[in-house]
Amino acid sequence: MRGAFITLEGSEGVGKSTQLATVGAALESAGRTVVRTREPGGTPLAEAIRGLLLGDCPEGMEADTELLLMFAARNQHLAQLIRPALARGEWVVCDRFTDATYAYQGAGRGIDTDRVRRLEAFVQRGMQPDLTLLLDAPVEVGMERAARRKQTGDRFEREARGFFERVRAGYLERARAQPERFRLVDAAQPLAAVSAQVRTVVADFVARWESDCG
Amino acid sequence: MRGAFITLEGSEGVGKSTQLATVGAALESAGRTVVRTREPGGTPLAEAIRGLLLGDCPEGMEADTELLLMFAARNQHLAQLIRPALARGEWVVCDRFTDATYAYQGAGRGIDTDRVRRLEAFVQRGMQPDLTLLLDAPVEVGMERAARRKQTGDRFEREARGFFERVRAGYLERARAQPERFRLVDAAQPLAAVSAQVRTVVADFVARWESDCG
Ligand SMILES: Nc1ncnc2c1ncn2[C@@H]1O[C@H](COP(=O)(O)OP(=O)(O)O)[C@@H](O)[C@H]1O
Ligand SMILES: Nc1ncnc2c1ncn2[C@@H]1O[C@H](COP(=O)(O)OP(=O)(O)O)[C@@H](O)[C@H]1O
Ligand SMILES: [Mg+2]
Ligand SMILES: [Mg+2]
Repeated sequence: MRGAFITLEGSEGVGKSTQLATVGAALESAGRTVVRTREPGGTPLAEAIRGLLLGDCPEGMEADTELLLMFAARNQHLAQLIRPALARGEWVVCDRFTDATYAYQGAGRGIDTDRVRRLEAFVQRGMQPDLTLLLDAPVEVGMERAARRKQTGDRFEREARGFFERVRAGYLERARAQPERFRLVDAAQPLAAVSAQVRTVVADFVARWESDCG
Repeated sequence: MRGAFITLEGSEGVGKSTQLATVGAALESAGRTVVRTREPGGTPLAEAIRGLLLGDCPEGMEADTELLLMFAARNQHLAQLIRPALARGEWVVCDRFTDATYAYQGAGRGIDTDRVRRLEAFVQRGMQPDLTLLLDAPVEVGMERAARRKQTGDRFEREARGFFERVRAGYLERARAQPERFRLVDAAQPLAAVSAQVRTVVADFVARWESDCG
């Protein structure tokens, strides 16, 4: 039986990388083999594309160029790492996926959602995560946490506050539109409380997956 | 009045880079301002993407990843260099463009032509070269010339002979399907004869452009 594909979403500093560890540990306690990965990235070539996406771009990166690079990295990641792991029965936990493209490139940069959808269809051919945890918190909470984490942000982290407000709203809108796939986590709580909520969501999902898929 | 967009196509070693100089000089003699460029590449970011496309990729590059990277570079090149130059009335001469994607990724790698067309429509929104010179020669002629040029080939130049036969056939098929845009040049001739044929094609095109566009 194939494994499940779980993604973590939310804007800068809400705690995705922190909670990836919680999700991975909870799945391993439940006896699953877990592959931890991230986007953009996840293979050597996709990480090189990540370098172009997050690095400085003095000429200015066109919004559609950013979108095409994101999906180039995603295509490589899906073909070389995600799909083979799921087929082997392993569970894949990924820090960001296509919902981030809708939130950042779509809502954040203002690219028409239909253009994101066209490339999503091209690359994913209908493939979607089985579970998406949306870590939601007021923008200032995430920005303050991210600022404490390190000195200089990447090309996305240097965006203005209004950009992150649009990203947050974009995420919440997608979560409302796809309630079966999304679980909303209140990421503004103290770490222990967020982790507890994440563990509950994962336990419910594992139970549901077992009853659905044997 | 906008400038014209002229592309040079053909497989490895047929003489595209050599004839780019002939085309540029002929246009300048005719009083045009000329921008010389190439694909993949043409801006610093697009050249960085070219580095990923032509460099080694030990994990193996998925055909669709290659296609998405090509169009990411092309989107940046069109937005930042080609469209602004044409709008200023300059003439752009480009070493390879989308016909190469149909020939290499489509015919060569066997990607369904419809998938190339979807990304072409996404990025170009109908935009096409005004004139395309297809330098055609038997595959062994180009391979021998390319081998004399330098020691080790890039990721494409290391492909097997059958790949280049498919590329050549793919180019010829496109030229037959779009006779108004394509001019076929017999690139197997000695250099002076090829250059003379290229100059004739360019002179005819300039005359036609002037009578059509004032
Ligand atoms: N619930 C929390 N309360 C306080 N700090 C947190 C919480 N979750 C994460 N952090 C801290 O905030 C910073 C950003 O977390 P991180 O997991 O890197 O966020 P993201 O991956 O979403 O950008 C890190 O320093 C992390 O230790
Ligand atoms: N008509 C020709 N006859 C002989 N050699 C040629 C001719 N045209 C180009 N060459 C040589 O062949 C090599 C490949 O040409 P080049 O313009 O780099 O090809 P391309 O850009 O199409 O790969 C170069 O060394 C060039 O000097
Ligand atoms: Mg993180
Ligand atoms: Mg060349």
